[in-house]
Amino acid sequence: MPSPSLPTVVQGPCAACKVLRRRCTDTCSLAPYFPPSEQLKFVIAHKVFGASNIVKALQELPESKRADAVSSMVYEANVRIHDPVYGCAGAISKLQKQLNDLQAELAVTQAELLIMQCQQQQQNDIASFYDRDLGSD
Amino acid sequence: MPSPSLPTVVQGPCAACKVLRRRCTDTCSLAPYFPPSEQLKFVIAHKVFGASNIVKALQELPESKRADAVSSMVYEANVRIHDPVYGCAGAISKLQKQLNDLQAELAVTQAELLIMQCQQQQQNDIASFYDRDLGSD
Repeated sequence: MPSPSLPTVVQGPCAACKVLRRRCTDTCSLAPYFPPSEQLKFVIAHKVFGASNIVKALQELPESKRADAVSSMVYEANVRIHDPVYGCAGAISKLQKQLNDLQAELAVTQAELLIMQCQQQQQNDIASFYDRDLGSD
Repeated sequence: MPSPSLPTVVQGPCAACKVLRRRCTDTCSLAPYFPPSEQLKFVIAHKVFGASNIVKALQELPESKRADAVSSMVYEANVRIHDPVYGCAGAISKLQKQLNDLQAELAVTQAELLIMQCQQQQQNDIASFYDRDLGSD
């Protein structure tokens, strides 16, 4: 009768090692950020930055910041794949234009509001005059 | 007596080949975008994307778009060097927050303007009533 054994969890290589067809070891620096289930995430980042640049970038950061750095690199790579000419720079430029347009619209609306406030003040003054005038009759 | 000869223009290798310490040939695909005088531009783009990824990215684009692609990659690389955790994604996030704040401020200002317009309309109606009332005396 076979002795009872604990179930073996076979996780397999991380997404990076799977794509790069290399052995994934316990010391793999990409494994924490590219689990086996997120292969596309690595393919995207790898296409734009290259695996070695991602590894180098992560090595220069404290561990607590690496997950955020990977997320932002995957985001940027995704934008670059969708817009290979302008990438995130294009997105920033569009947002800055929208911001400028909105600031101009706000300035116009604020000016209109100020004009209305002045007009209303004038009307209040006239109404007060009428009230005083009729009250004194 | 030496025969007169045309002056020789020694341009030297492009910035990319100089940094990568390789011979720059007439067919160098990076030379048009990284002239010898712009070494820092290449160093920045190379640090983040890597030379081979830049070459691959350019090869996938028509020639007319390559200069813009290089500019946007240098811009993105610059942002990533200044903010190695969030890069352009961080800049986009900040701009989107500013845009949301500004949209909220514009909505409030537009609502205030609408209220003022209604109040002024009411005052105009009252003033017309007074005018008619006094006119009929």
